[in-house]
Amino acid sequence: MLLERIQSPADVKRLSLAELEQLAAEIRQFLIEKLSITGGHLAPNLGVVELTLALHVLFDSPRDKFIWDVGHQSYVHKILTGRRDRFDTLRQYKGLCGFPKRSESEHDVWETGHSSTSLSAAMGMAIARDLKGEDYKVIAIIGDGALTGGMALEALNHIGHEQRDIIVVLNDNEMSISPNVGALHNYLGKIRTGRTYTKTKEEIEQLLRKFPFGNALARTAERLKDTIKYLFVPGILFEELGYTYLGPVDGHKLDELLEALKQAARTRGPVLVHVITKKGKGYKPAEADSDTWHGVTPYKIESGEFIKKPSHAPDYKNVFADTLIQLAERDSRIVAITPAMLGGSGLVKFQKRFPDRCFDVGIAEQHAVTMAGGLAIQGMKPVCAIYSTFLQRAYDQVVHDICRQNLNVVFAVDRAGLVGADGETHQGVFDIGFLRHLPNMVVMMPKDENEFRHMLYTAVSYDGGPIAVRYPRGNGVGVPLDPELRRIPIGTWEVVREGSDVALLAVGPMVQVALEAAARLEEEGVSAHVVNARFIKPLDRTMLLELAERGLPIVTVEEGAVLAGFGSAVLEFYAFEGIGGVRVAPMGIPDRFVEHGSVAEQRRDVGLTAENVAACARKLLTRAAQRA
Amino acid sequence: MLLERIQSPADVKRLSLAELEQLAAEIRQFLIEKLSITGGHLAPNLGVVELTLALHVLFDSPRDKFIWDVGHQSYVHKILTGRRDRFDTLRQYKGLCGFPKRSESEHDVWETGHSSTSLSAAMGMAIARDLKGEDYKVIAIIGDGALTGGMALEALNHIGHEQRDIIVVLNDNEMSISPNVGALHNYLGKIRTGRTYTKTKEEIEQLLRKFPFGNALARTAERLKDTIKYLFVPGILFEELGYTYLGPVDGHKLDELLEALKQAARTRGPVLVHVITKKGKGYKPAEADSDTWHGVTPYKIESGEFIKKPSHAPDYKNVFADTLIQLAERDSRIVAITPAMLGGSGLVKFQKRFPDRCFDVGIAEQHAVTMAGGLAIQGMKPVCAIYSTFLQRAYDQVVHDICRQNLNVVFAVDRAGLVGADGETHQGVFDIGFLRHLPNMVVMMPKDENEFRHMLYTAVSYDGGPIAVRYPRGNGVGVPLDPELRRIPIGTWEVVREGSDVALLAVGPMVQVALEAAARLEEEGVSAHVVNARFIKPLDRTMLLELAERGLPIVTVEEGAVLAGFGSAVLEFYAFEGIGGVRVAPMGIPDRFVEHGSVAEQRRDVGLTAENVAACARKLLTRAAQRA
Repeated sequence: MLLERIQSPADVKRLSLAELEQLAAEIRQFLIEKLSITGGHLAPNLGVVELTLALHVLFDSPRDKFIWDVGHQSYVHKILTGRRDRFDTLRQYKGLCGFPKRSESEHDVWETGHSSTSLSAAMGMAIARDLKGEDYKVIAIIGDGALTGGMALEALNHIGHEQRDIIVVLNDNEMSISPNVGALHNYLGKIRTGRTYTKTKEEIEQLLRKFPFGNALARTAERLKDTIKYLFVPGILFEELGYTYLGPVDGHKLDELLEALKQAARTRGPVLVHVITKKGKGYKPAEADSDTWHGVTPYKIESGEFIKKPSHAPDYKNVFADTLIQLAERDSRIVAITPAMLGGSGLVKFQKRFPDRCFDVGIAEQHAVTMAGGLAIQGMKPVCAIYSTFLQRAYDQVVHDICRQNLNVVFAVDRAGLVGADGETHQGVFDIGFLRHLPNMVVMMPKDENEFRHMLYTAVSYDGGPIAVRYPRGNGVGVPLDPELRRIPIGTWEVVREGSDVALLAVGPMVQVALEAAARLEEEGVSAHVVNARFIKPLDRTMLLELAERGLPIVTVEEGAVLAGFGSAVLEFYAFEGIGGVRVAPMGIPDRFVEHGSVAEQRRDVGLTAENVAACARKLLTRAAQRA
Repeated sequence: MLLERIQSPADVKRLSLAELEQLAAEIRQFLIEKLSITGGHLAPNLGVVELTLALHVLFDSPRDKFIWDVGHQSYVHKILTGRRDRFDTLRQYKGLCGFPKRSESEHDVWETGHSSTSLSAAMGMAIARDLKGEDYKVIAIIGDGALTGGMALEALNHIGHEQRDIIVVLNDNEMSISPNVGALHNYLGKIRTGRTYTKTKEEIEQLLRKFPFGNALARTAERLKDTIKYLFVPGILFEELGYTYLGPVDGHKLDELLEALKQAARTRGPVLVHVITKKGKGYKPAEADSDTWHGVTPYKIESGEFIKKPSHAPDYKNVFADTLIQLAERDSRIVAITPAMLGGSGLVKFQKRFPDRCFDVGIAEQHAVTMAGGLAIQGMKPVCAIYSTFLQRAYDQVVHDICRQNLNVVFAVDRAGLVGADGETHQGVFDIGFLRHLPNMVVMMPKDENEFRHMLYTAVSYDGGPIAVRYPRGNGVGVPLDPELRRIPIGTWEVVREGSDVALLAVGPMVQVALEAAARLEEEGVSAHVVNARFIKPLDRTMLLELAERGLPIVTVEEGAVLAGFGSAVLEFYAFEGIGGVRVAPMGIPDRFVEHGSVAEQRRDVGLTAENVAACARKLLTRAAQRA
């Protein structure tokens, strides 16, 4: 085994081409085996084995800076930079992170997780290098999907203008997570199908210099040169934007890759190396369906069958899709929008049923939200399905276009709360804070999948402006689903357990946790009143006033940043009302980022457990007693 | 006067070409005269007089939808749609809005203010139209500056892919507010200079059909056709992205405009009409310096001299620029970044002094922030100057790239608080909420321009992670500037007035308001303790504990959304500490958007006046007395 001898990139540099090819095969085998047990981003990493090897052969990490856009394709890089032994702990609590992580290795120079950031980071590093008079290479590796993100396009435009030495490796696998959309994608497709024309600009110009152009014809000749270049050179679009375009290169042929990257290293100014790869390369099931195999749970290697944990409850995303289909059957105004999360959001089903009313806009959250606004203003009822963490990308559009114009846009905020193995870049923990302070916004969260269905109905029936329903990643709690959908009155909470000593106001999945806490307290003779605070905004004023009247101390529990969160909203309410003396203890995620692990581990880590809720209630009661 | 007879677009349609030209001249005169008194966006509107006329002649607003990107160029449209008489109230309290406003007219179908939103809105409307089987035109009018914004590029990509009927009018004036940057801009420049090649794709294809291409040569012929198109057709980049490109058209020649727009109306699928205009056209001073004349205060028409209100205090942006220059002289790590706000941020000066250390990245807030991260990670000290309202565009980058990696990026958050005449799209009122809940973030606001200088020094000296200093638009208070800069200890507040009955905790300019309130209370025998809460995060724990110990009721005062704001942070502090019984009354901007007017009017509108602060304190004291 060659792989066992690779401790650092230096060991890779020593290998012959044949050995590198053998190493590539061994790495594939390693990934297929390890991920069959841990799960993880299989297909993206199988796609970049040769590319990563070529980069480490030719460049000198960490002196040269590799910036992995999104970062879920950095496993091979991790294997080659001394972290092979840690793959058994991949994406597990305290284990190897699924994304680049500076604390893991000096070879991880920039952390990613969200897409489309690499070019901006590369630009910053290149400027720093030039100002300090240093001379390392800056290499951004970005997928064709990530390239459609607005910030990547902003950076592409700026880099082309500034003309600093930056190498952009365009890892073109015709996919983001779902198949790509967009005109740029179509353009790349044209290049791919015209592959035989691989002459580079340089070669063409050499050729052209042989033509005898007279002085009088100089201007025409220049134009003709441009034209002939267009005839032969793919990637004219990038050339027009100021890049030297190299490619397309077969991303699974090491010799081609090494040649192109060598040329890129020699070229001054920004270079774009267009590498064609196949997601899932080398593992049949993943090659055949790279969408499913993008990020996977453990599987059987032979059959490609996923090892499913038995669950008695449906997945929230399926409940979302099924309910939305049901609603869209009766209401032709409903359309669904997703930024490149057709599979993740569950909308694949919806698209099959309503192909004309489902829009995957690519990785383009900002566009998705404002486009929803355009639909709403013309009387449609757009449902914008975006993960909480990615909705951060469209914050200004939510503020400026939707809330300010008070448009009837439904936000289906998926993966709200702690998300598990994807870790700190993907936690959906800020949306309560950044949505609830916006005028006109309604924010809900269901305690279970049955209530979720009623909330979706409530949202699409609501004509008062923007309304968001946030819901967790993964499975519901397994309650029966009501056959009839009903509207939940806006701003009303629900008492799920009567009690007389302390009130637990809980949001979403925390209702379950609060009920468990109440059971614990019961054993100690404390009677807890548990409320399903299903509206984060507006609050249930009547219930809050009643709780104050009854003199109950209050614990608020939310799976979101405790600063500026739901608990703060409750504090604000009593302060605005001028009601003093109500003791409120807000529980939520403390003021730090929460790393990868299981959701249960993460909840323990941040203290959102039944045990802690009970302890907090007890402390509050003791204080109240001391004060009385 | 023709202008006096124009009550609606129907009146424009009846005019001959000669009359339209006369009307254009009259509109220019009208704008120059009216804005000399009210101020406003002069240069952008002088640039689009003919374009707006042509649009109203050819299309049928409001049936056809005009979407004005940014919207500060919608004055001519307002004049032609029955709002001419209201121009004396432009941008004034309860007067005509400086941007499109649906409540003003049915001809304003989409509200703007921030740039780059028009294409997404157009896409949404076009989808709605097609789904409902309607057949109106959707026309987005977007500047070349706004086109560099990421969300516009996302939409450009999606529109090119979807191939619905949308007309994009590219108003190319070679400027955003400052001169443009970016590779796309360079590309447009190439088209402009090669203007003679105005043959359209259609004409060329007609021409090509005459050539006898044999069957065997079909593929080559196709390619050759593409090539020849490239020879003649400018705008190949847009053609590659799926648009029919028309132009470039002289935006001040009505006949050319009408011809091109007529052709656009006939064309199926997305069309891009490239219109070349001159900002400030028809008014010499504005033509000569359209940057200065972008948005103006009142001026003398003859001389082009601005009528300045006498001010005894320097402008915050100048204090910013001067101080940053002073700091950058001693610290070579400091670089400045601005997204197209070189003038507005005051950085023009900095750029002159340090051309290599100042980066105007164009309208690209997301890229600006993450690029700052790249600089920081390589040891530089980037200062990112962004208006509060535009920082909303980069929220995810602040969360995911900067705070999560805990990078030493300084955010100079300009125009924080109420901004006056630009109105609700530009208020800087959400940043306290969306910044303070982010781990690792420090947020400051100075009470005056002298403290601002110390804060800038504190920020660039701080190596603990991201730090933001937010500051208001306009002039300081006229205090003397200390010759020496000093560091303010992180998380410390300042008592600006000792008192014993009630504490007023004020942020930024509200310190002045709180002092005035204290003076009023003094007259009534109430002794107010006034604190300059210069750190919004972290809070001054020592001082908060002390206030609780002294049993003082607290009024918090901030010029920001009261939900999730500074007042909530104070409430949270006491709740987390388990300290009950402290009465806190948070004052801030209520849960609604605040329209245009003067800052003083806006403060009265939202209740942030000395009188109200005093009243709030009084009420709090009465309640406390009743309770005691």
